Amino acid sequence: MPVGTQATVKGLTPDELGALGTQILLCNTYHLYLRPGVSIVEEAGGLHRFMRWSGPILTDSGGFQVLSLTPLRKVTDEGVIFRSHLDGSEHFFTPEKVVDLQERLGPDIAMVLDECPPYPASREEIEKAVKRTSAWAERSRKAWRRKEVTFFGIVQGGVYRDLREKSAEELVALDFPGYAIGGLSVGEPKELTYAVLDWVVPLLPPDKPRYLMGVGTPEDILEGVARGIDMFDCVLPTRLGRHATAFTRRGRINIRRAAYARDFGPLEEGCQCYTCRHYTRAYLHHLFRAEEMLGPRLLTLHNLHFLFRLMERIREAIASGTFHHLYETWLQERGG
Amino acid sequence: MPVGTQATVKGLTPDELGALGTQILLCNTYHLYLRPGVSIVEEAGGLHRFMRWSGPILTDSGGFQVLSLTPLRKVTDEGVIFRSHLDGSEHFFTPEKVVDLQERLGPDIAMVLDECPPYPASREEIEKAVKRTSAWAERSRKAWRRKEVTFFGIVQGGVYRDLREKSAEELVALDFPGYAIGGLSVGEPKELTYAVLDWVVPLLPPDKPRYLMGVGTPEDILEGVARGIDMFDCVLPTRLGRHATAFTRRGRINIRRAAYARDFGPLEEGCQCYTCRHYTRAYLHHLFRAEEMLGPRLLTLHNLHFLFRLMERIREAIASGTFHHLYETWLQERGG
Repeated sequence: MPVGTQATVKGLTPDELGALGTQILLCNTYHLYLRPGVSIVEEAGGLHRFMRWSGPILTDSGGFQVLSLTPLRKVTDEGVIFRSHLDGSEHFFTPEKVVDLQERLGPDIAMVLDECPPYPASREEIEKAVKRTSAWAERSRKAWRRKEVTFFGIVQGGVYRDLREKSAEELVALDFPGYAIGGLSVGEPKELTYAVLDWVVPLLPPDKPRYLMGVGTPEDILEGVARGIDMFDCVLPTRLGRHATAFTRRGRINIRRAAYARDFGPLEEGCQCYTCRHYTRAYLHHLFRAEEMLGPRLLTLHNLHFLFRLMERIREAIASGTFHHLYETWLQERGG
Repeated sequence: MPVGTQATVKGLTPDELGALGTQILLCNTYHLYLRPGVSIVEEAGGLHRFMRWSGPILTDSGGFQVLSLTPLRKVTDEGVIFRSHLDGSEHFFTPEKVVDLQERLGPDIAMVLDECPPYPASREEIEKAVKRTSAWAERSRKAWRRKEVTFFGIVQGGVYRDLREKSAEELVALDFPGYAIGGLSVGEPKELTYAVLDWVVPLLPPDKPRYLMGVGTPEDILEGVARGIDMFDCVLPTRLGRHATAFTRRGRINIRRAAYARDFGPLEEGCQCYTCRHYTRAYLHHLFRAEEMLGPRLLTLHNLHFLFRLMERIREAIASGTFHHLYETWLQERGG
């Protein structure tokens, strides 16, 4: 899922996202609640009509943003009190309120409010967060009214095996239509990220989608899929693109590097994206050096194309029973 | 002509410019000379291939930019010494060099180097500038080699009737394929801008294009056409668009205004541009409030569409002998 935090995938139109093969995109409840405000999106006829994207949308609950972006937050069993990062105003999110906000935004998939403590956190903190996350999930389940919006539960538990297992079991007992694994890719070593997946995924129902939140390098996606993950979201393709960095089969390149000033080849040889079919590295280099808006737009297009093409190959490989081969060769070629 | 100073019309692809009906766009020799450098554009196969725009391109000579943007400039009869606004490095432009640079950039139309003193300037300064502009035009005419690039002369003379007439006559004597009127819209009252056109245009050959440089509000375009101008360039539609301001038949609106937060109509009722066909004022308001890149892009599209549609109506009205009616009704509706 490309990230469209504020009801826009930075710089791109929904038409471009559609042409890229976007199947679903992510928006953020915390950001939209603060600006433009849920009632405006509601009046517009919901998020799809507001941003003019007719494909599926997933909204994140805002739990992560509230705990990472806002100053002076306070978490109680009842909910989270926080101050807006925009104007310092005080707000209170409860599990029930976050369900209501998302039902009013009207995505296809929504996330329950969870508690995701910043990494590293003590075992005691994580234990408390797991307990709260389960209790909040249960309250969310009860508050859920609009069946057109599908709520997913979120597994927490940091990097502690027993807490992850406890969280997964408690969430699964609540019978959500899908499950997310939260609190990863927040600074822990990669080995631990993958270990958590190894512990948690086998406990999740095989017939329900599993979503690994906030993860999205090509390598992490392959490792996630190898462990049974179905869905990902990540700001990397768009954020890196805005900052002059392009994904290629041989790793990332920064197009601002002087080496590209007279390089009249495409970002990546053989790439069929709009940017590679039309523009040279020299021109893209110039756009970034000159701080021209078209540069971020064109690199974002390329990066999303790159990841969507990878997902497409993964789906084909799974269907034809060759995923392991794809996984091995990709990581080998990258020296991974 | 939309302005694509640095070989890109800010935020838009050439495909979008084509779809808007762009007939020709403007790039800037001074900027491209400094960055990426003329030799890179040359290696890319010229400006059209570098920026991937196959329609006509006009390059401004850079005379105006050198005299308005750069610190520590010095004008002599030989040329202009100036420092780069990017890194302070020293450069020297002569009429011959500017012809050569543009022939290497490879636009369809290029401009000779002129001297355009900042407004207000004394009669003595303008007199000197007119003399130099004529001498430089003559040297440019002689230096011109590549006949695929068509050079236009530029009439100067400030707001002094006799100097404008002298400049026009001397330029016309050099028999350029087209003529620009420079040094207007630099701070002088509108009445003087229009008066200069009244003096100069009748002296220009009726069978050659007349280009009013740097002018482009809807009203100025109508006034210019009424006085015999054929071509315009202006940063307004793109610059205003980036700063949240949209042209409408009833004047400019700033979409950031709180009044638009819950306005679910288009920027302009009946407008057939991409933005108005797809987006509400409320969404555009949100994009600008949230500082999202898509906002500038969508307002730029609208503003260019607005001006191109005006030019289209002007051409139709001229062809059907109803221009005077269009001119009157437009200015009346605007209370102008």
